[in-house]
Amino acid sequence: MIFPVIMAGGRGERLWPRSRAKLPKQFLSFLGEQTLVQTTVSRLEKLVPAEKIFIVTGREYVSTIKQQVPHLSEKNIIIEPIGKNTAACIGLAAVYLERVNSDAVMAVFPSDHMIWHKDKFLANLQVAAELAKKEDCLVTLGIPPVRPETGYGYIKLGNDFRTFKGHSIYRVERFIEKPDLNRAKAYLNSGQYLWNTGMFLWKISVIRKMIKQFMPDLHCALERIKAALGTSEEEIVLAREFQELENISVDYGIMERADRVFVVPGDFGWDDLGNWIALGRVHQPDSQGNIFQGDVINVDSTGCIAEGSGRLVALVGVQNLLVVDTDDALLVCAREKVQDIKELLKKLKEENREEYL
Amino acid sequence: MIFPVIMAGGRGERLWPRSRAKLPKQFLSFLGEQTLVQTTVSRLEKLVPAEKIFIVTGREYVSTIKQQVPHLSEKNIIIEPIGKNTAACIGLAAVYLERVNSDAVMAVFPSDHMIWHKDKFLANLQVAAELAKKEDCLVTLGIPPVRPETGYGYIKLGNDFRTFKGHSIYRVERFIEKPDLNRAKAYLNSGQYLWNTGMFLWKISVIRKMIKQFMPDLHCALERIKAALGTSEEEIVLAREFQELENISVDYGIMERADRVFVVPGDFGWDDLGNWIALGRVHQPDSQGNIFQGDVINVDSTGCIAEGSGRLVALVGVQNLLVVDTDDALLVCAREKVQDIKELLKKLKEENREEYL
Repeated sequence: MIFPVIMAGGRGERLWPRSRAKLPKQFLSFLGEQTLVQTTVSRLEKLVPAEKIFIVTGREYVSTIKQQVPHLSEKNIIIEPIGKNTAACIGLAAVYLERVNSDAVMAVFPSDHMIWHKDKFLANLQVAAELAKKEDCLVTLGIPPVRPETGYGYIKLGNDFRTFKGHSIYRVERFIEKPDLNRAKAYLNSGQYLWNTGMFLWKISVIRKMIKQFMPDLHCALERIKAALGTSEEEIVLAREFQELENISVDYGIMERADRVFVVPGDFGWDDLGNWIALGRVHQPDSQGNIFQGDVINVDSTGCIAEGSGRLVALVGVQNLLVVDTDDALLVCAREKVQDIKELLKKLKEENREEYL
Repeated sequence: MIFPVIMAGGRGERLWPRSRAKLPKQFLSFLGEQTLVQTTVSRLEKLVPAEKIFIVTGREYVSTIKQQVPHLSEKNIIIEPIGKNTAACIGLAAVYLERVNSDAVMAVFPSDHMIWHKDKFLANLQVAAELAKKEDCLVTLGIPPVRPETGYGYIKLGNDFRTFKGHSIYRVERFIEKPDLNRAKAYLNSGQYLWNTGMFLWKISVIRKMIKQFMPDLHCALERIKAALGTSEEEIVLAREFQELENISVDYGIMERADRVFVVPGDFGWDDLGNWIALGRVHQPDSQGNIFQGDVINVDSTGCIAEGSGRLVALVGVQNLLVVDTDDALLVCAREKVQDIKELLKKLKEENREEYL
């Protein structure tokens, strides 16, 4: 039995100004009709029925999720009082799910990733789930890199590997943060590294044990939360406990410290759509290297990504720009500076211009 | 007696997207409260009463002029059936004005120029008018260049000069089209060149004689128009004659060919506001060389001109861009490519997107 858990509490700041605190990127559609969270749910429904799919999110996004995924039962929406990164999010989901079946496998997914080859993805997922079930280990999905990407984390493969159900499985040697370009090139060339997808599988009982071992504070908080579930205290306890939790990812809190961590490599056409440049990758550029969405007119501009929203967007003689136009805010950013959009949001926050966040 | 004639029929295409065919730049305000044509009229009212000020424009702009300059009598608005450049415009004004007093001086002005030192300007104007009256010659105002500007025409000074009412007057050797940067630098260094302001003074009888001599087709058309003025045929004759006229500036049609052309040099802080870069000149840039109007937020951008219109404009890590945001169209243009805005408008025209012109 697999319970997919979709983490949908993120802010998607790097896709500002389309992605906003009130409606972040997982609730927007960037490719085709469906929003990213809708696509993520549909994809997993090929594997399990909707009753088994859970979404963890903030209270402010519950109504959006109900609207976008109306066939998902309200009890399948797990509410984090505040976002405290993936370790706390996953721990909370585990506490909810172990009430159903602590021997089941939970499979954790970001809500906003792009996967081109769904069948291949689902096949890998099933292998990973069976491995997690059989070996009581932590399993992740990794992608063989196809470019020296500096926007992703990497997984260093251990030497030992084996074949499981016809798939090559590697032990994870370590998790690596986003590298600089030189290191990314070395990783690409060595063949010993995979992209870290942030998708994890484990038995609920196993992840609970790992949290107890490596994150005892989180464990104690989860125990207190568990005791309060279904009582009148539930909401207050949840809020109080989350307030105190460390803001740490499951990668650093658990995966790096645990012993038996395996990765199933799979080339299923994955992109995390982490920033505007990622969106550029999933569209075919024109002969001048431009990617235009909406009403864009161009004279001699090259290498630009431009997204309109009703208004005419005119580019004249510019290079390698990102131009995103929305009803109330317009972004003009150098392509190689998209990471600085975060600086911009910091500035807006400092100026108390919440309406634009 | 001086009749100022303000030419206000232009399209101001280089200031797109703020300047549009329906409301071109002379009817917009770029600095302070007044629109450019209002500023131009006010400036001339220091010299003569409003009854003597005439505006030549297209029929489509008459209501805007009445609205913006309500104290100007309707009979002081001269309507060109279609724009045929300055020679035809000036010829038409001369035909109207000679009915009042053909011995008077007419002083022709663009409607959209910036003048910082009004008193100096008016002093020069008066000298020029007296010279035109006394000598039956063609007179223009020229500006000593202060940078190697490639966006202006130049006037080459002749060797002979004299002093008139305490001002140095030069004979014009020739009029020169917009030069490239090397020639502009040479002009600046030589001290023998002035910027051509497009402001001209002459007796009405004199310009009529010059037109007869150098532009006989225009002369014949003007005679036919004159004969029709005040008759029921007036409008039809005007339309028919203008349809056939050559599209040529007074600089090339008359000034270059005429013999007795003088220039009064004057450093009265002039700018033609011909394009967005000109607007950059008349505002003080910040310490990163940016000029922002409206709600602009910036992270590490330099040398940019950005003009918002309500919406938030965010610049991140970009250099030397022009960003102009309006309700229905947004322009992002390299600063050194502002001349290509004309290409953009051509493209919009080809695509029949008149609503944006």
